[in-house]
Amino acid sequence: MKTRIGILGYGNLGRGTEIAVAAAEDMELAVVFTRRDPSAVKILTEGVPVVKAEEMADWADKIDVLILCGGSATDLPVQTPQCAALFNVIDSFDTHARIPEHFANVDQAAKAGGHVAMISVGWDPGLFSLNRVYANAILPNGKDYTFWGKGVSQGHSDAVRRIPGVKNAKQYTIPVEKALEAVRNGEDPELTTREKHLRECFVVLEEGADAAEVEQQIKEMPNYFVDYNTIVHFINEEEFQANHSGMAHGGFVFRSGKTGVNLENSHIIEYRLTLDSNPEFTTSVLVAYARAVKRMFDEGQRGCKTVLDVPPAYLCTQSGDELRAHFL
Amino acid sequence: MKTRIGILGYGNLGRGTEIAVAAAEDMELAVVFTRRDPSAVKILTEGVPVVKAEEMADWADKIDVLILCGGSATDLPVQTPQCAALFNVIDSFDTHARIPEHFANVDQAAKAGGHVAMISVGWDPGLFSLNRVYANAILPNGKDYTFWGKGVSQGHSDAVRRIPGVKNAKQYTIPVEKALEAVRNGEDPELTTREKHLRECFVVLEEGADAAEVEQQIKEMPNYFVDYNTIVHFINEEEFQANHSGMAHGGFVFRSGKTGVNLENSHIIEYRLTLDSNPEFTTSVLVAYARAVKRMFDEGQRGCKTVLDVPPAYLCTQSGDELRAHFL
Repeated sequence: MKTRIGILGYGNLGRGTEIAVAAAEDMELAVVFTRRDPSAVKILTEGVPVVKAEEMADWADKIDVLILCGGSATDLPVQTPQCAALFNVIDSFDTHARIPEHFANVDQAAKAGGHVAMISVGWDPGLFSLNRVYANAILPNGKDYTFWGKGVSQGHSDAVRRIPGVKNAKQYTIPVEKALEAVRNGEDPELTTREKHLRECFVVLEEGADAAEVEQQIKEMPNYFVDYNTIVHFINEEEFQANHSGMAHGGFVFRSGKTGVNLENSHIIEYRLTLDSNPEFTTSVLVAYARAVKRMFDEGQRGCKTVLDVPPAYLCTQSGDELRAHFL
Repeated sequence: MKTRIGILGYGNLGRGTEIAVAAAEDMELAVVFTRRDPSAVKILTEGVPVVKAEEMADWADKIDVLILCGGSATDLPVQTPQCAALFNVIDSFDTHARIPEHFANVDQAAKAGGHVAMISVGWDPGLFSLNRVYANAILPNGKDYTFWGKGVSQGHSDAVRRIPGVKNAKQYTIPVEKALEAVRNGEDPELTTREKHLRECFVVLEEGADAAEVEQQIKEMPNYFVDYNTIVHFINEEEFQANHSGMAHGGFVFRSGKTGVNLENSHIIEYRLTLDSNPEFTTSVLVAYARAVKRMFDEGQRGCKTVLDVPPAYLCTQSGDELRAHFL
């Protein structure tokens, strides 16, 4: 019997989840829950019901894992604990500083409801976290580096769009090549914010807006831009739509560590992601971990989990024998 | 109480293990077992006994995990099952094709003895295996690539040394930069053996040996060299000792995968190791996983395990709360 998956929220993440579930031979999409009018939500899979979120409780015995596809700012802090009372759930909560608080809330709800709830699954937090943990355990004497990009920062794009005179904007975070090379070469550099990442903005102006004034406002914006070298390009709406509607992202996690009687030997562990579609990759991670959620629940585990609690084999459809023969 | 570690075999791996245990605040080295005359084995740590391997059984209750530091060809197939009857054990068995057979033997012995026995821990098999498994689970539509080097191949160095007229030799396996770039660019190339790796040999000749003849014998050697582009340098013994006594190694694991309704989006996952000392890095991995062996044993698990069975958090000294707050 296939693992029955539910989706809550049908934006980029919901659609990406639907695609990833279709690619998983051991899973089937059972239902999509939405806070919108269900008749206005057109999904890709034929024959799967789209249901009002308020009616979720009716589905408690009809799905094995609910994949939460809302945002971290306001949706998930409320939805994940609520849904963990009804279902095994998994989310991609990515506000790093609030993970301990979210974990505590979700853990309580999942234990009370008798479910497994996995949080903060994706690539950062998620795969990048895994790599930080493995690398720190293996090389206790060392330094960590995380670089993001080249990719779109939604928060920085939004910040530029809020400037008067800006019609549309996209901001790319770009790791500085020289910094990457210094880390790769084992130089263990101390890097300032400015030395690690560049910011590049593509901006469409409202008619009559003052380009020089907008550029200055971007470059001097506290928190978002003032500590970075920022490049601003002004383009027209056609070029914007043609070249800047993608959702590519990626990044690098490094650990540079030393071993030896006198720490005379250096080792570099590098993990790199280059992603055409941030939401489709994130949901591919979510769906693989949904497989683990089902397995951990079937084993009798309960409560809140993260990627750090999951044996890698639990992400796979293959048996232990197959994995050892083909991947080890 | 610290985890008490035993070591069997005091070559490069044994010494690396001793160094890694000293760097682990939660572990202590309890004993080194050797098949040599114990009085001839000088270890780094003061006060730790060096004991004949035949006396291992006397130590059954005095160590928590025995780290096996023998070779995969003849030592580990015998030692790991034998020792799993007496202790929790961990090895770095790396003959990929024989892992299923080794697993079966060790599993039987460990279950009969009531212990946890972890096999094939290191970087390949080990960390590279983990990355293949994670990446395949996340991107089911895709292609895998593994490159090794730049690093010393012991087997190829030995093969060159067996040629008459060769006094000393070291062989480096080098990934072809053009192939790496094609994979990184998402071109999904089909690569022949020759297109993936170069082989570079540094050879010291016996007096009076014919360099041209030796070079031809190397380049035409079946299995080892004939399918590769091979570069041969003849050097003198001084240069050999000065520049070619290191044990650097490393390599790359890639998965290139596609997502999307029409598989229109490409993603590249790259994992790269650059290691000054192959044995010291391998033993750093072994020691981190020895921590997991102890924890799995304390939980009541028994039998043979691999890295695929271990939750990442089990490698760490930190609590779940600390890991979530600092690494997730």
